[in-house]
Formats: sequence, C-alpha cells, structure tokens
Amino acid sequence: MFTQEEKDAFYKVIYTRRDIRSFLPIPIERNVIDNILHAGHHAPSVGFMQPWNYILISSEAIKEKLAWAADKERRAMAIHFEGERESEFLSLKVEGLKEAPLTICVTCDPTRGGSHILGRNSIPETDALSTACSIQNMWLAACAEGLAMGWVSFYKKNDIRDILDIPPHVDPIALLSVGYTDAYPDKPILETANWEKRSRLGHLIFENRWGNCCGSHSQIK
Amino acid sequence: MFTQEEKDAFYKVIYTRRDIRSFLPIPIERNVIDNILHAGHHAPSVGFMQPWNYILISSEAIKEKLAWAADKERRAMAIHFEGERESEFLSLKVEGLKEAPLTICVTCDPTRGGSHILGRNSIPETDALSTACSIQNMWLAACAEGLAMGWVSFYKKNDIRDILDIPPHVDPIALLSVGYTDAYPDKPILETANWEKRSRLGHLIFENRWGNCCGSHSQIK
Repeated sequence: MFTQEEKDAFYKVIYTRRDIRSFLPIPIERNVIDNILHAGHHAPSVGFMQPWNYILISSEAIKEKLAWAADKERRAMAIHFEGERESEFLSLKVEGLKEAPLTICVTCDPTRGGSHILGRNSIPETDALSTACSIQNMWLAACAEGLAMGWVSFYKKNDIRDILDIPPHVDPIALLSVGYTDAYPDKPILETANWEKRSRLGHLIFENRWGNCCGSHSQIK
Repeated sequence: MFTQEEKDAFYKVIYTRRDIRSFLPIPIERNVIDNILHAGHHAPSVGFMQPWNYILISSEAIKEKLAWAADKERRAMAIHFEGERESEFLSLKVEGLKEAPLTICVTCDPTRGGSHILGRNSIPETDALSTACSIQNMWLAACAEGLAMGWVSFYKKNDIRDILDIPPHVDPIALLSVGYTDAYPDKPILETANWEKRSRLGHLIFENRWGNCCGSHSQIK
C-alpha cells in the first residue's frame, strides 16, 4: 500500500519532529495552518467522540497573558527543583509563547457526544488521550510543513480558562506554540542540555508479561 | 526541508490510518514490529520522561485472558446503552484480540524519572498524554508498514494488571491489536455503522477565545 519512498518520507517526519521553544517573527500561511488542523481532526478518538476544539491565538494581548500564566508557573516550579537542579532548570528556555506568531490551545470537552461514549465508559481519560493523539498528528504535520511546534504544559488550567473564556468543564490540554524557526535541533533540547537521556528502547520492551525482557530486542537502542 | 512528494506521503499515512478490529492469521516480521516500537519510542514526552513500556503479547493463552477481560467489560457496558442503542452496540465488533497475531500493551509509569518531572509537576496527567503520543506514532507507523492496528479500551485496568503482572502503580493505557487485514476501510468503522458522524472541523475552531468562531475556517469540512 505504501512504497519504500513513502515509508521513508513518513519516518523522516517521525524522527525530525522536535519540541521547539524559539521562533522567528514570520507569519504562517492560512492554508498551512488549515493543513495542520485538518490532520489533527483526523486523529483517532474513543467512540469517534472527537472531543477536541482548537483556539487559534494570534492576539498579542492574549499571548502576553498566556506567557504571564506560564512564567508564574515556571517560577513556582523552580522552587521544587532544589540546589543545582534549580539553577539548571531556570537556565532552560521552557516556552516561546510571546515569540511564536501563533498559539493553539487544544481543549478536550468530556461532555461531547453525550453521557455514554463507547470505550470512554470504561476508561474516562480516553477523551484526553484522544486529544493527545490529535496533538501528535498536528505536531507531525507542522514538522512536515517546515514549521516548529512546542507543547507548553506549565500553567494552572484555571488561569488558561480565565484568559480564553473556556467553560469550567472543558480541559485546556495544551498550549502549542507554532512558527518558523532557525534552530531545529537534531536531538531533544532536554537531551542536549543534559537534563535527561534517551532510554534504551530494548530495556522498555517485555514479552507476554511485565518484567520478562526479550532477548531479540535487547540490542535495540 | 520536506519535498511535496514527502509531504504527500506523510499525509497519505495520516488519512489512511484506521482503527481495525479484523485481522488475518499472518505472522508479522520482527523488523516491522521493531520499526513500529522505534517510532513509538521517538514520540515526545513531558520533561523527556519516556514513561512508556511495551509488552508484546503473542501467547495464545494470554491473549485468551485479555479477550475474556474485554468481553466481560463489553457485556457490562452494553447494559448502559439502553433500548435500540444496546442492540446496535452489541452488533458492533469492538475488538479483535484473539484474531490479531500480536497485542501490544502500552503502559505508563508515573514514577519514571523521579519525583519532579519538568512539566508533569504542573499537570500530572501529561505522562499519560505522552504515552498517547507514543501510541499515535505507533499507529501511523503500523499503517505505513501495511499493518492494521486497533486500540482496545474496554477493560478494567486491574484485570489487565493481574493478567500481565503489571505493578499496581503502572497504568495499562492501551491494548493494541496488530496484524494484517483484508478489511482496511476508507472511513471509521463507527461512521460506516452510523454510530457517530465526523464533526465539521470549521465548527471546532475558535479565534483568540472560546466561542469566537472564525469566518475563514467555517468552510472547512
């Protein structure tokens, strides 16, 4: 169904995608944004619930407020990283909300589709997991379009609800910064900054039950 | 960075991927499984936490037990869909756990990486959302490899923990059925079965604040 060239192109997107926090002040074409949103909307969702909404934020005033909420949370979180880890944390650039020309707030409405959603009746958080699948589609699409994206998860949800008039029952899952960048790194920023290493995949794979390491995968890095 | 051909190939995967419940008894090559797992492991994760494990289940005896847990939950859930919706629900094929040659249980370990994970300190469920991003990468990779995948979310988590020896603090996020199929549908199964319709994307997009519909997107289907 897919040629080797098509597979290669797909995997190129998978392995090129990065979480970015530095953006250039270059506007994004409307049709490119639409391509990203369209890919997001074609993610899988539990019971075909499609619990997501996409709030496109280009207003400078509103982006300022979002950046304020994220910075407040960043400073609060720094207190929990004590000693050396605190100064290391404070030196990281954790968001680029004011730089990026566009922020997309992706939300999850747990009431979408009625009270009994096929699959969600068993595991309620599958609505948020579906929304994460939508975000991952958007992230990969942004990468394919030559754009950079960063997922900001430093905020108190009620600050974001207040700033964007989001109803109390709706969950602001992510603030996605979107824009062009001149700093598309080969490796995750947190790996380069020696914050955390990539785990060896072979150590994360078990066979038939938890803890049962499988020999043939142990060579996978 | 990406040619038009590469972008087209990427979007072909995004729009071809489907949730499948019917599988052929054809074994899957080991290197193809490795490609899927490798793509999953290169998903983004909060604070580069990589909270996932992948349990590969090919044992018939264990697949039987998983199918038993899913069927038990399916029958319990049917009771909540009353009247016509109940018989409609019971006529749906909601899983193919026994048919598929491989089931992958994807788990999330909230303790991975220590007590204070960058980003997860603010929003704890970002560990599970990261795991969903990994699952979406795997799903797309399976599609690119010509394989079918189905996400089963009908179960009590403790049944799955008991069957697969998963520790109590680790969350069995998904059971993914993987295999070849002769029934790769153009549309979501739940759309074809008239269970649920695809929402119009233009109605899900707001500008700068919740509820503020943006005209230029209202034409998007």
